[in-house]
Amino acid sequence: MKAKVLKLLREINGQYISGEKISSELSCSRTMVWKYIKALREDGYVIEAVSNKGYKLVSISNHLSDHEIRSRLGNDHLFKEISYHEEVESTQNIAQKLINQGAGSGTVVIANEQTSGRGRLGRDWFSPKDKGIWMSLILKPEITLREAPQLTLLAAVAVTRAISSVCSISSEIKWPNDILVDGKKVCGILTEMQADPDRIKSVIIGIGINVNQTDFPSSIANIATSLAKARGEQVERSELIIQILNEFQWLYEAYLAKGFSFIKPLWEVNAISIGKKIVATTAQGRLTGIAEGINDEGVLILRDDNGKVHHIYSGDITIPKD
Amino acid sequence: MKAKVLKLLREINGQYISGEKISSELSCSRTMVWKYIKALREDGYVIEAVSNKGYKLVSISNHLSDHEIRSRLGNDHLFKEISYHEEVESTQNIAQKLINQGAGSGTVVIANEQTSGRGRLGRDWFSPKDKGIWMSLILKPEITLREAPQLTLLAAVAVTRAISSVCSISSEIKWPNDILVDGKKVCGILTEMQADPDRIKSVIIGIGINVNQTDFPSSIANIATSLAKARGEQVERSELIIQILNEFQWLYEAYLAKGFSFIKPLWEVNAISIGKKIVATTAQGRLTGIAEGINDEGVLILRDDNGKVHHIYSGDITIPKD
Repeated sequence: MKAKVLKLLREINGQYISGEKISSELSCSRTMVWKYIKALREDGYVIEAVSNKGYKLVSISNHLSDHEIRSRLGNDHLFKEISYHEEVESTQNIAQKLINQGAGSGTVVIANEQTSGRGRLGRDWFSPKDKGIWMSLILKPEITLREAPQLTLLAAVAVTRAISSVCSISSEIKWPNDILVDGKKVCGILTEMQADPDRIKSVIIGIGINVNQTDFPSSIANIATSLAKARGEQVERSELIIQILNEFQWLYEAYLAKGFSFIKPLWEVNAISIGKKIVATTAQGRLTGIAEGINDEGVLILRDDNGKVHHIYSGDITIPKD
Repeated sequence: MKAKVLKLLREINGQYISGEKISSELSCSRTMVWKYIKALREDGYVIEAVSNKGYKLVSISNHLSDHEIRSRLGNDHLFKEISYHEEVESTQNIAQKLINQGAGSGTVVIANEQTSGRGRLGRDWFSPKDKGIWMSLILKPEITLREAPQLTLLAAVAVTRAISSVCSISSEIKWPNDILVDGKKVCGILTEMQADPDRIKSVIIGIGINVNQTDFPSSIANIATSLAKARGEQVERSELIIQILNEFQWLYEAYLAKGFSFIKPLWEVNAISIGKKIVATTAQGRLTGIAEGINDEGVLILRDDNGKVHHIYSGDITIPKD
């Protein structure tokens, strides 16, 4: 109900809405409306109340919450369920538990803090309280095992586009799953799945974004940055989350209808590594050469110094400085 | 302890072993030895007791049990943990739960009955009480997402080899996961995994074998058979389980060391479909042609009537009757 009250306050777009209007729209008493307004104020929302005019939303809370996110998503959104948590070990683990309990496609797990955030290849992901976006998307697409890594690329496109529209800064994708601003990492994407050789049963796309950090631990200070550092001012996390979910929605629907060939050019236009000399570290060893692009499956194509073409399915790439 | 007593009885190989020997080997009292012998008899084992000679195992129980399986596995076997159940919905689901609880590579889930046994593509698998082998192997190999389907082929080789040595009947593999005797299905293999694009985290290989059924529901009577029907006599399930686990162990170790190229010829020698005209039904549609074989990845190669070569990653194949 807090989400519904918030949605009405937001929809009136800086104007006043009367308590009577809210109570009739939501079929609840004026006293209940007052209780929800009070609860929202306690959450950090600034809501003006003027006699004979009603309530006006002056500023939203910088605190993340499920009602904040829910109040901003359309009713027929791909992402229908928001599972919000103040502190979790890892949103990926929560998502896995929800799947085991029968959670459907379109569930989003969001946390204000992760105590054991995970990155690719078993690495840690630093996820401090109040500062970032730590979320996991649950999806159950009808795609094959080989197509699953394409969802990582799709998510990277959604995030770069959302960063551009919300923060007005440009970001670049480093194959397969990192998003950089000014050459430093602001976002990592971790796609995990349950599958059999015939089909994907569920996918969890973890998205970790450094949003409002001003400092980083010394171990990552040289390689990590935040959107706020790059932009020079704080970013409203819930706005960015909504924009990512909206971008993801249309890209995902186009992908399911038209295949990865629709996503490929959108990915390439934001990719930092294409056409450059790269070093790829894979399970099979180390390769150096020019990253020619990705193929129609999303696999990275590397041409080595002898002109031999290699397909990189997984691995780490680095772009050596000249 | 029952498993240890059983192991001693088995190792003496049809001879008598004294109660004193058992009690000293297992560091327990003679009274306890007697209690274990009594418990084993209640489980259906026929154990002769003769004064001044001791105990002799005359015949084993036809009832499956964890101590029966455990007493037959070597101490340094790949499969170290046996999780035995009288009745489960699905051994795959139990295996998934065990993984969530931290079960390690080499755990085997075995059930005497499955009430909701699962096959490929969401199909049911008929798994009646006392009659079959319904088991799931948990493994955590360091392989890539694309290599995972190879484990289905490896498991099929292990099962055909075990059937041959225990039952002295030959069986054939229909790509990718069915094992046929006299053209009818005796075994299905369902490989499920948790993975990210970089690596497999865990694999559950489900193996369902029709062992001692004499009748099948009318819906599958035309396409299913059992080893007992083909052989003309009952098969000891625990012996077949042990043989499958033993075959699996050496094939798996060779596979991890040498790759799929080691498994490929062993698979091909038992494959029914190679060189024959097949119909493949895939997510992309229906294809007819000659099955030329599998490639080094385990992917089925089909040459259609126009000579065009197709790679079949997943799907159903049928072998039309001439």
